[in-house]
Amino acid sequence: MAEYQNQGRQPRRAAEGQAPARRRKPFYTRKPKAQVKAQEPAIPVKVIPLGGLNEVGKNITVYECQDDMIVVDCGLVFPDSDMYGIDLVIPDFTYLVQNKDRIRGVVITHGHEDHIGALPYLLKQINLPIYATRLAIGLIKNKLEEHNLVGSTRLIEIAPKEKFHLGCFTVEPIHVNHSIPDSVGFAIECPAGVILQTGDFKIDYTPLSDDPTDLATIAEYGHKGVLLMLSDSTNSERPGYTATEQKVAAGIGSLFRQADRKRIIVATFASNIYRIQQIIDLAVENGRKVAVNGRSMVGNTQMAMELGYLHAPEGVLIDIEEINKYPPDQVVLITTGSQGEALSALSRMASASHRNVRVGPGDFIIISANPIPGNEKIVTKVVNVLLHLGAEVIYESMYDVHVSGHACQEEQKLMLTLARPKYFMPVHGEYKHLKRHAETALRLGMQPKNIHIGQNGECLFVSKDGLSIGESVTAGSVMVDGLGVGDVGNVVLRDRRHLSEDGLVIVVATVEASTGRVLAGPDLVSRGFVYVRESEELMEGARHLVEQTFDRCTAEHVRDWNSVKTRVREALSSYIYRKTKRNPMILPILMEV
Amino acid sequence: MAEYQNQGRQPRRAAEGQAPARRRKPFYTRKPKAQVKAQEPAIPVKVIPLGGLNEVGKNITVYECQDDMIVVDCGLVFPDSDMYGIDLVIPDFTYLVQNKDRIRGVVITHGHEDHIGALPYLLKQINLPIYATRLAIGLIKNKLEEHNLVGSTRLIEIAPKEKFHLGCFTVEPIHVNHSIPDSVGFAIECPAGVILQTGDFKIDYTPLSDDPTDLATIAEYGHKGVLLMLSDSTNSERPGYTATEQKVAAGIGSLFRQADRKRIIVATFASNIYRIQQIIDLAVENGRKVAVNGRSMVGNTQMAMELGYLHAPEGVLIDIEEINKYPPDQVVLITTGSQGEALSALSRMASASHRNVRVGPGDFIIISANPIPGNEKIVTKVVNVLLHLGAEVIYESMYDVHVSGHACQEEQKLMLTLARPKYFMPVHGEYKHLKRHAETALRLGMQPKNIHIGQNGECLFVSKDGLSIGESVTAGSVMVDGLGVGDVGNVVLRDRRHLSEDGLVIVVATVEASTGRVLAGPDLVSRGFVYVRESEELMEGARHLVEQTFDRCTAEHVRDWNSVKTRVREALSSYIYRKTKRNPMILPILMEV
Repeated sequence: MAEYQNQGRQPRRAAEGQAPARRRKPFYTRKPKAQVKAQEPAIPVKVIPLGGLNEVGKNITVYECQDDMIVVDCGLVFPDSDMYGIDLVIPDFTYLVQNKDRIRGVVITHGHEDHIGALPYLLKQINLPIYATRLAIGLIKNKLEEHNLVGSTRLIEIAPKEKFHLGCFTVEPIHVNHSIPDSVGFAIECPAGVILQTGDFKIDYTPLSDDPTDLATIAEYGHKGVLLMLSDSTNSERPGYTATEQKVAAGIGSLFRQADRKRIIVATFASNIYRIQQIIDLAVENGRKVAVNGRSMVGNTQMAMELGYLHAPEGVLIDIEEINKYPPDQVVLITTGSQGEALSALSRMASASHRNVRVGPGDFIIISANPIPGNEKIVTKVVNVLLHLGAEVIYESMYDVHVSGHACQEEQKLMLTLARPKYFMPVHGEYKHLKRHAETALRLGMQPKNIHIGQNGECLFVSKDGLSIGESVTAGSVMVDGLGVGDVGNVVLRDRRHLSEDGLVIVVATVEASTGRVLAGPDLVSRGFVYVRESEELMEGARHLVEQTFDRCTAEHVRDWNSVKTRVREALSSYIYRKTKRNPMILPILMEV
Repeated sequence: MAEYQNQGRQPRRAAEGQAPARRRKPFYTRKPKAQVKAQEPAIPVKVIPLGGLNEVGKNITVYECQDDMIVVDCGLVFPDSDMYGIDLVIPDFTYLVQNKDRIRGVVITHGHEDHIGALPYLLKQINLPIYATRLAIGLIKNKLEEHNLVGSTRLIEIAPKEKFHLGCFTVEPIHVNHSIPDSVGFAIECPAGVILQTGDFKIDYTPLSDDPTDLATIAEYGHKGVLLMLSDSTNSERPGYTATEQKVAAGIGSLFRQADRKRIIVATFASNIYRIQQIIDLAVENGRKVAVNGRSMVGNTQMAMELGYLHAPEGVLIDIEEINKYPPDQVVLITTGSQGEALSALSRMASASHRNVRVGPGDFIIISANPIPGNEKIVTKVVNVLLHLGAEVIYESMYDVHVSGHACQEEQKLMLTLARPKYFMPVHGEYKHLKRHAETALRLGMQPKNIHIGQNGECLFVSKDGLSIGESVTAGSVMVDGLGVGDVGNVVLRDRRHLSEDGLVIVVATVEASTGRVLAGPDLVSRGFVYVRESEELMEGARHLVEQTFDRCTAEHVRDWNSVKTRVREALSSYIYRKTKRNPMILPILMEV
């Protein structure tokens, strides 16, 4: 348990003891004006990250104060490659279900999957009001529609600078820059103090269509005193600043000129409305029509148009079915597939299975996104095929066609310096990201004991008197496979992995219940093991061995079927390993007659 | 078919037509002195890349002239993530087996797996003499020992500047820099002309322990006239130069000082003898002992010591069993696992299952390698765990702890400029790499028709008169799984993928042959589908449905077992999909009594 002690009144030499080589007084030892008179009995706020720590995605945090609870974000994470067959992974909601009567609402920072994707699964278990900005509500609505939850869910629109109350919590949304419009952080006031949760953010002084991150409001909270800050750690390994989105505009602009008489195809994230707007603007500038392609891209642009987040002059947008009516140099196609997703529009173009688009030497393709870790190889595969078809392809770091949506180290420093929180918990990242973010805070002079690298499910009690850790609550990953939520666990996954590696061999026989005599079989059936037609000798040997084992069991009067199965499995397994150095799953099945 | 025409005698304005904006005469239009008198009847050389094109790895090239054939390199490639259960992938040797009597030998550029790894599999089919430099022979020997092939294989040591003859081919090894000592390229002379195959190379003017790439010899061949060059494309996307290995020495050196009183653990490639030497040197400088860990690391260092490629003063190397006898600041551990490999020494340290090493806050760990594409996520996993254990971890681009072994664009330009080949075929890379390398050659003024982006199995006929493409030969990927070479094909892989996604459901029943009556069962057995104990209702419903299907078949007198199976499969499949949105493999098995 880390105990916080009188930081505000610390004598100067203590600070110097901490960092003897420094001349200037470290930022964190300077007396914050507003904290001097904090002397009341301390009411704690309980902070429980149910997801988003030691992982990228599945962001969800619970705050409890007195008898009220609020939830910030409710995201999903896409499965690791060793989660065979899993579609997506959501947080474990056990703790929320147990406390459902105390939850006053779910507040959402922005409309990305890793912040809203698990909402339908939560809402199926608990009906809760959702507070989100306009665009986020649009995206959430689309999602809830797929799950038939729109009618039953209360969606409340919020906006920066407009405080709202949830029990003893007063929440102020604070405008931040990110790779999707209408992103906010939250200043969460409760009897314990103020918590600042940045949400995903970066600081863009020259954003394309809205304001820079609201640094003034953050500074104001910092001035009044922030008890705890939770801040985005995604880019904590990167020094410097994330470049402005304007740089991308310039980069893509020069590529438009370079494309000359070719058709332009831009692949990007369907949620990156800024990027889509840039491309539309450039298309207008260059006298090109714009077609939008891919299910999520079409859905998002349509919604963003209706809500006023996207603008295009009359007649610029055309239907994908119409693109072949225009000469190549009068068309821009905006598409999904920037991550090489197998069924995306760009992948279909690459595999020549797209209904409207045949890629060839007349195409100039820009992939305006970086591969998300783990997707590098499939993106490369798509790039190779597109190049092979003769298209010019601009990808990865070849040009300034993408900037991150997250703050780098210098921006993280600015956030810490303005908010000057008493306690700091880096969030949104794997352990290495959280660690680096904590190191950045240390470098600003923050004391190690006031920085906490947390874990999912951990209960933090935070008050003016200190930060302590209570008993953990249930938290973890629930795997979604088709309609099944949580019915695939470690046993099923282990079997899938085993089956994927060496396939299986089934041994089936019908035996006479009274005598143990084999009436039919033993037959061997294999899948994913060897190509049977070319391995007749091996399979015949295996069958022979199984017969012998049955005979031996009969001779030895072994009549317990489980023992027989075990002996068959062991004999066959060692035979197969000796012959092939493989370990297929072996399934003996006995039918009694 | 691209036809080469009179390049040497091209008038100036033709060149200017190609690149009108250029003032200076492009390099490639200048008349090479030695080519003027080339007027004899043209004998072609047949060039067949059996691997290494449109892929990274599995490098192997065949040259045929008159009645002689030689093979350059014989590498493997590690399987893609969708090649379930496959251990490694080797070239298809069909063409070599068909022509085995004409093959004069296999010549090896260097001892990396992607250049020597498939040798045992080739040698099991054809006994061929292997020509390689000393260190490569050491590595090949280790490999052949595992396959019991040392006694039967003739290994001939070659060295730079020492020409040797293989039928009508005269081969001169040319020293090049790479990430393993004793790397060479080859100048291959035959009646058709000179072919320059660079092998994997970079140009390091200040290498650690040997000479820079032998530019003079390359220039000399360029001066005399090179018919065709095959050059390494790995880094063709990267502008500039690959930094010198000295920079790594400096980088790691400063980290050694930074490590202070901690134990130092360095993970790197077992074949990077230069890197290992640097670490030993730094250990000596800092008064530390060196222990070496990991099977391949121990094997390689031992062999490199014996052959004189590694040097350590008496008493510096200690056994891994002894490391705990020394205080942390007197030890350096060199280990495998820089790619996060599951069973490597570093991964065992991370999972606390290493016999001698417990990682903790007293450790300073340097990962001196970049993740190979596809390995990013597992490397990150290991880094996270090591950080979590309290160790300081230096990884990826945090410091100068790694440089590539391959030439970047400026080095590729230098190679092209010195060798000034008539024809150029970029090799060693995916399509995007080959394409970029070709673009680099174009930028040097080379004519498009003289640059060929090839494919595995393609037959190139190259002579002074031109370059043409003949009929392709069998080439491709042969998958190795355990002892099986090539017995896993697309059917088996498809089954493994299917099994990995949704598992399987087996339906088994014993039926009376004469009546079709079900005597036992139907029983359902599933693996990797759902956790059965929590899905009793679903499974019971499925069993019931199968019973109904059997009954209906009996009622309808369907007695063809295949039809019965098909009906069972279809009924069950649609039931399961409706209930779960999953598609397990369904295997009906009927036993006749």
